[in-house]
Amino acid sequence: MKTYKFPPQGDWIKILQRPQVPQADLDGLVKSFFDDIQNQGQQALSTYINRFQGFKGTQFLVTEDELKSAETEISDELKSAINQAYQNIHLFHASQSEKVQKIETMPGVICWRKSVGIEKVGLYIPGGTAPLFSTVLMLGIPAKLAGCKEVVLCSPCDSSGKIHPAILYAAQLVGVEKIYKVGGIQAIAALTLGTTEIPAVYKIFGPGNQYVTAAKQYAQKFKVAIDMPAGPSEVMVVADESAVPAFVAADLLSQAEHGVDSQVVLVTNSEDFIQKVELELSKQLAVLPRQSIASEALENALILLVEAVDFEKVINVYAPEHLIIATENVSELAEKVVNAGSVFIGNYTPESAGDYASGTNHTLPTDGYARQYSGVSLDSFVRKITFQQISEEGIQNLGSTVELMAEAEQLFAHKNAVTLRLKSLEK
Amino acid sequence: MKTYKFPPQGDWIKILQRPQVPQADLDGLVKSFFDDIQNQGQQALSTYINRFQGFKGTQFLVTEDELKSAETEISDELKSAINQAYQNIHLFHASQSEKVQKIETMPGVICWRKSVGIEKVGLYIPGGTAPLFSTVLMLGIPAKLAGCKEVVLCSPCDSSGKIHPAILYAAQLVGVEKIYKVGGIQAIAALTLGTTEIPAVYKIFGPGNQYVTAAKQYAQKFKVAIDMPAGPSEVMVVADESAVPAFVAADLLSQAEHGVDSQVVLVTNSEDFIQKVELELSKQLAVLPRQSIASEALENALILLVEAVDFEKVINVYAPEHLIIATENVSELAEKVVNAGSVFIGNYTPESAGDYASGTNHTLPTDGYARQYSGVSLDSFVRKITFQQISEEGIQNLGSTVELMAEAEQLFAHKNAVTLRLKSLEK
Repeated sequence: MKTYKFPPQGDWIKILQRPQVPQADLDGLVKSFFDDIQNQGQQALSTYINRFQGFKGTQFLVTEDELKSAETEISDELKSAINQAYQNIHLFHASQSEKVQKIETMPGVICWRKSVGIEKVGLYIPGGTAPLFSTVLMLGIPAKLAGCKEVVLCSPCDSSGKIHPAILYAAQLVGVEKIYKVGGIQAIAALTLGTTEIPAVYKIFGPGNQYVTAAKQYAQKFKVAIDMPAGPSEVMVVADESAVPAFVAADLLSQAEHGVDSQVVLVTNSEDFIQKVELELSKQLAVLPRQSIASEALENALILLVEAVDFEKVINVYAPEHLIIATENVSELAEKVVNAGSVFIGNYTPESAGDYASGTNHTLPTDGYARQYSGVSLDSFVRKITFQQISEEGIQNLGSTVELMAEAEQLFAHKNAVTLRLKSLEK
Repeated sequence: MKTYKFPPQGDWIKILQRPQVPQADLDGLVKSFFDDIQNQGQQALSTYINRFQGFKGTQFLVTEDELKSAETEISDELKSAINQAYQNIHLFHASQSEKVQKIETMPGVICWRKSVGIEKVGLYIPGGTAPLFSTVLMLGIPAKLAGCKEVVLCSPCDSSGKIHPAILYAAQLVGVEKIYKVGGIQAIAALTLGTTEIPAVYKIFGPGNQYVTAAKQYAQKFKVAIDMPAGPSEVMVVADESAVPAFVAADLLSQAEHGVDSQVVLVTNSEDFIQKVELELSKQLAVLPRQSIASEALENALILLVEAVDFEKVINVYAPEHLIIATENVSELAEKVVNAGSVFIGNYTPESAGDYASGTNHTLPTDGYARQYSGVSLDSFVRKITFQQISEEGIQNLGSTVELMAEAEQLFAHKNAVTLRLKSLEK
């Protein structure tokens, strides 16, 4: 860990800079997958799945039977937990829906906007040792709430053609009907271009490794939208002596265990507190299953000792994906947050609550993108289409304004479209 | 114009395909501007402005005096029109603000989200013969309503250092304080990288030619966000015999006069109506100042004769930026719109009303992107940050859910962050 004690404010930006991750240039590789799937469709897809997932099938849709048996393969406790998380996430995301509000900007000029679900969306769920079924909830719930007609989920199967049952259970619960056993670049290419089996979609969501991330970037060349740019996950914990060192250490480790490139930052105003947290970190780390990952991530962790009055500035310079605030004046400080993805307030609000089940979304902007991007929400799955309806009275009220402005912009057909209507009403 | 009469539904996608605009590869050119401004800052900027705008100055901020004199240079009528448009746009965009709503997902688990303005945004306003002061309103009003702290506007000056007074008037009215006389690639590079004079921003908005569009794409490599992908403007008019041929022709021409690559589509169920519109088109075109542009655009225009029952499907296949509906059952058809940027309902709602002053935004998704993107709105200028605050009771209610899910995802530090808290409450 690197510790900086009361560094001058001019150095903060430099100190808080995230490490430049050397980007492997995967464009050539990704292009070859896309080209093959564009030219040879389902056949190329089978070849890639055989090669990279070790599965020799040629059809990838998860069947009814597979779904039913998945349900029997996970414990009742886990099912209850997933159901509870579903309820909380559903409740919070449902509250984000916007009612149509008709605004009469002038008499006879009525404007409104209506949220309409994106017709076709793709959800990518990574496989591997840790099955991210929580992400199925985080993406699937808002997709269904938004009214997306076609929700397609891709997740890699193992060589026997199996997807982790918790992923299948969560997908069923959410109401996703089309689940394909496809992962990696080939999944993103299939969702972008479509094959005889897998429908092409308009927007792709979900986390993934560097290959999936590169593929999502590349997909945009085909006019597919993606949820947001992706980078390593990160947490900033801002704590003073009112915080509990063991809790803070546990929160820092939660982030550190994600991966060796996880960004972990502690900001505090107490040297004594730093020592207590460090002690707790070594204690907790010693018994952690993912110890080697977490300890490597911690090597790059940052501890920043500043005056409490500067907490606000440090937060907003860094723009953390996850921000935990455990200080005396939590609410006051939370009010001052300008740049962050999701904020966890108080001693009993660990990041893991939001990662799984409090109700907020866990797909959040990393790498400083919290300055300009929001996390995934119901908004991410809709377009807000604007409508306007102008009456005869309305065009008489608004007409001359439009005529004058159109003329000043030298767009006379624009003007004429109003003039003709006004003339037709002269009598 | 190309007319298709009752083509089979299987052909619609092909017929409605937008022409592939050959994309000049401007990446190398754009990169050289960015490199120079990154390495030599303000000095490189001056060189580019001298070379491409013919202006020999070295400072580009519009002064108080210039703003004052701009106000005297435009007519009182135009000022009133701009003021009226301001009011309508302000009213409609203000209605888009979201109130903080605290949701208790479980007893003691409270989640909410708060809209916070992006701290620094850049607005690009093209110069040239038609000064797009209306775009100043469309971008500046939501930026200020969102509470963006730094709103920077760039627009090219002429060789004498002058920006069109209507642009300056609109910028003042909106409350934009920093206006720079910079256009083209150099403007986007300066907004991305910053110079001694021009602050770097987090998100760039606004229309532009192919150079500006390429520069905005390139800016994203520097972690700057942009409003949306840009393409030629487009309108689809859906009309039956209840529509007025002269109005429809005027609306088609409004789009056609924008540029030779404008996309103009008429969808109707009446051959007789097509003839009447064509007659009106030639009459109106004959007296149009931008006749040559409009007639070139009309050559690529599309007329589609289909059954009225198919209007809905044609609209949603095409996903028009602007959709005008002038049919008997306007409201019913408008309800069925799934893919469109902005919808204009009825005989007295020309597109030009929304382009200038009805209240809706005119920065809209083109090129079929209405399938996955919304137009610019207040949302485009904020991040919706999520917050959660969990009480001792709350973590006791939620804790086991999180523990079970974290364990199933094999993230034991995530679990431990909850377990430690639960244990501390055991007594």
